[in-house]
Amino acid sequence: MGRWQPDAAGRLAQAALELFAERGFEQTTVSDIASRAGLTERTFFRHFADKREVLFSGQSALKDALVSAIASAPDSAAPIAAVATALESVAAFFEENRDRARNRQAIISANPELRERDLIKLASLATSMADALRERGVPEPAASLAAEAGMAVFRIAFDRWVTDDGRPDLPGIIRESLGQMHAVTATAG
Amino acid sequence: MGRWQPDAAGRLAQAALELFAERGFEQTTVSDIASRAGLTERTFFRHFADKREVLFSGQSALKDALVSAIASAPDSAAPIAAVATALESVAAFFEENRDRARNRQAIISANPELRERDLIKLASLATSMADALRERGVPEPAASLAAEAGMAVFRIAFDRWVTDDGRPDLPGIIRESLGQMHAVTATAG
Repeated sequence: MGRWQPDAAGRLAQAALELFAERGFEQTTVSDIASRAGLTERTFFRHFADKREVLFSGQSALKDALVSAIASAPDSAAPIAAVATALESVAAFFEENRDRARNRQAIISANPELRERDLIKLASLATSMADALRERGVPEPAASLAAEAGMAVFRIAFDRWVTDDGRPDLPGIIRESLGQMHAVTATAG
Repeated sequence: MGRWQPDAAGRLAQAALELFAERGFEQTTVSDIASRAGLTERTFFRHFADKREVLFSGQSALKDALVSAIASAPDSAAPIAAVATALESVAAFFEENRDRARNRQAIISANPELRERDLIKLASLATSMADALRERGVPEPAASLAAEAGMAVFRIAFDRWVTDDGRPDLPGIIRESLGQMHAVTATAG
């Protein structure tokens, strides 16, 4: 163990986001990030597998939050209601960290490889939500449909939230988009 | 130009699918594929960038089929009806090539990297469908919601179709799943 470091991971993440925004993701090295944070590369690699993972290190906490919100929804809650509650709870977190979420998204949007990684991570969150719904006894295909609908709504709402300068609130956009998803899937036969 | 080769791409794709199924994707080389098809590696690379692309070479035709079906839907068709018609038309193609579609999917499912590639390709089809809907004058977020709902339904229906031995028909499962998507997204408020 080295000397005591107050929240090294947080300082590294902050430094990485700053540098990605200033120089671009490709032009930033792990050495740059460590140096900006006043830490060593070795410390960086104790916390992150590579510079890309700095951007996705929150996924695991996000997944836990979604899964536990679905698990703790009232027994009477419909699958989509459990999903909506879960998404709105994580949306509230993003709402409180809006600038950081926007910066992160701008970096991801500028890089095709990061966009693919983001897509894959979000798809795995949908799979985790479907698993959590099945744990509640929701049968297939309802569990997968509710989870995938929820994740599609989340992505579309998130994009709107990130790009809209009118400061709309994310939980509100999610609720509204979910209603629109229901309306838009009405088939006339 | 070498000597005339009857449908070299088709022979290479067939050889690749056989070998992927027999030996696994990782264990198959481009040299193996060319050799099984009775062609040279050089011919292989004239048709495909790498062995992975053999599995995804149909994506471009699939995209064209989806986009043109959406574009040619009657003016009166609701966005989701245009999407449903498009998905059912490509589903009919898969239905006619069921064994091939199943073999391909089994190979993809067995390999995490291929699963990711598949996910990314499907997401890009959803984006193309949303573009085609906007071309029809469908506003956002309805265009993205209808396209994403359609693609989620397609993936879930396709998984069911591929794994169900009862030989259900894919267009039928898609229609049914779309109805379920609408039902499942009904929020009690």
